[in-house]
Amino acid sequence: MYAIIGTWKMSCEGVREAHAGLARGGAAEDAVEQAIRAVEDEPGFTSVGYGGLPDHDGHVMVDAAFMNGNTLRFGAVMSAENIRNPIRAARALCGRETNCLLAGRGAEQFAIAQGLPMRDLRTPASMMQWREALRQENRKPDAYREHDTVCVLALDGRGSLIAGTSTSGLFLKASGRVGDSPIVGSGFYCDARYGAAAATGLGEDIMRGCLSYDIVSRMRMGVSAQKACEQAVKALSARKIELGEDAGSISVIALSPTGETGAATTLPVFPFAAGNDRGFGLFAAYPAQDGMDIRASSMQALEGEP
Amino acid sequence: MYAIIGTWKMSCEGVREAHAGLARGGAAEDAVEQAIRAVEDEPGFTSVGYGGLPDHDGHVMVDAAFMNGNTLRFGAVMSAENIRNPIRAARALCGRETNCLLAGRGAEQFAIAQGLPMRDLRTPASMMQWREALRQENRKPDAYREHDTVCVLALDGRGSLIAGTSTSGLFLKASGRVGDSPIVGSGFYCDARYGAAAATGLGEDIMRGCLSYDIVSRMRMGVSAQKACEQAVKALSARKIELGEDAGSISVIALSPTGETGAATTLPVFPFAAGNDRGFGLFAAYPAQDGMDIRASSMQALEGEP
Repeated sequence: MYAIIGTWKMSCEGVREAHAGLARGGAAEDAVEQAIRAVEDEPGFTSVGYGGLPDHDGHVMVDAAFMNGNTLRFGAVMSAENIRNPIRAARALCGRETNCLLAGRGAEQFAIAQGLPMRDLRTPASMMQWREALRQENRKPDAYREHDTVCVLALDGRGSLIAGTSTSGLFLKASGRVGDSPIVGSGFYCDARYGAAAATGLGEDIMRGCLSYDIVSRMRMGVSAQKACEQAVKALSARKIELGEDAGSISVIALSPTGETGAATTLPVFPFAAGNDRGFGLFAAYPAQDGMDIRASSMQALEGEP
Repeated sequence: MYAIIGTWKMSCEGVREAHAGLARGGAAEDAVEQAIRAVEDEPGFTSVGYGGLPDHDGHVMVDAAFMNGNTLRFGAVMSAENIRNPIRAARALCGRETNCLLAGRGAEQFAIAQGLPMRDLRTPASMMQWREALRQENRKPDAYREHDTVCVLALDGRGSLIAGTSTSGLFLKASGRVGDSPIVGSGFYCDARYGAAAATGLGEDIMRGCLSYDIVSRMRMGVSAQKACEQAVKALSARKIELGEDAGSISVIALSPTGETGAATTLPVFPFAAGNDRGFGLFAAYPAQDGMDIRASSMQALEGEP
């Protein structure tokens, strides 16, 4: 058995290639890295890696994480600049007993010392968008809309269960701001006995509920990957409403040790890519009366969606 | 009802003063800040704030967090230099809808913009210890022994439940290394409906189990603060042993919304300070046959302990 799932339409090509690798007997670790690198390297995706939108000061500061559910070890970099593939730095840190979570210059120095390729992550298009946004006075907080993290979960035939995330974070974020993506338990969590989960959306909200750990905890209790996603998103958004806030922008994916997937969202629609030994496809989750409605979809049908 | 609990002997004086403030009707938020500031300002405590031991490059890089269990909001700074009271910066960030978790220069700029006092956190004594350690060749990993975080949990008469942490992290840590202390769910978690928890020890291990969130989740299920601490520490250390590792260096505290405290450790002894409307004292937790043995103690009896 092998299986893979990735967030948003942007992960579709990378997840498709990684799925083919798993089908040839490849390792889950390689599948997660490959799928995320494809998104990081594509300048058209403006919330991850190269071409990601800058922070308020005009710097593209990236976060990434990589967790091995068989060892419970993880590695992550955060608020780091100029690392071409942050997921590779995170993977290289995964396995360390100490110093596995690095911020800022320390993360960059680690990547350089590892011989990982460095690159200016700014593009003419991203800098133009930044200058444009700064020109607009009285910006509304929905300049913060861009917060789509690529998250990939993979299981291989040897029972390895791996989680990875990568993002350039909120467009116009404050200098040094870190969201949920490199934060274990919030942006990702993975325990090979119970399952893996990852989250995308407004990181500050996701962290308040340790959402990925919450999903895996529900799977530990015997809840299916799909129901665990639904219950966790429902509990956190209900709590936000109790506190007088809106439900927020939260989407999650999960993968069980037997290859079952799950997805849930507070948005009207949440696209994701998924595959296993029976095939590969693009899907979308839609909130329904009783949990989520999950439907096979296509790039055309999801035109205009992230 | 009011109650307060803080990790290690070093928190004793600050927690005592904060306890007196709670007794006079003070707010839990002020109690947590006051108790932690006292430790940060004391150069004799070498793992927190001023006088904290430097990283491998000779920089004192601090982490701190502050969480309000009534709003589920938190603020945290990490891998930051020259902030005299990191807990004040974390508290000032708590309540923000976005940009509540700041790393490195961004955290320092935030503290400066808030008008918080800045200070070179190095002392002649800490720099001497650093030079000494670098001189010793073939250093063993137990140069990493210094990892005692000050964690304080407080409940006030208005039902506010607050958690705070502050640390300078591992002595000789890699540049940019961040441990569990500023990581929500790992170093701290607080939900006024169920309880608050915080952890100290090797952060890389604590994060693998999202230990503080795990404790609060157990309290949500109806487990007492003491039993929740014991069960969570036992589960994580048992898992480490299953994975072929040692049990690790992990200590935790918890506080329930009704003022009950809990403490557990993998060490031979774990000192903590605690008080409520019936009094204040120094205590120690000792691993016993069936969970923990918690005993009232004294500075003399705990001579030589951290």
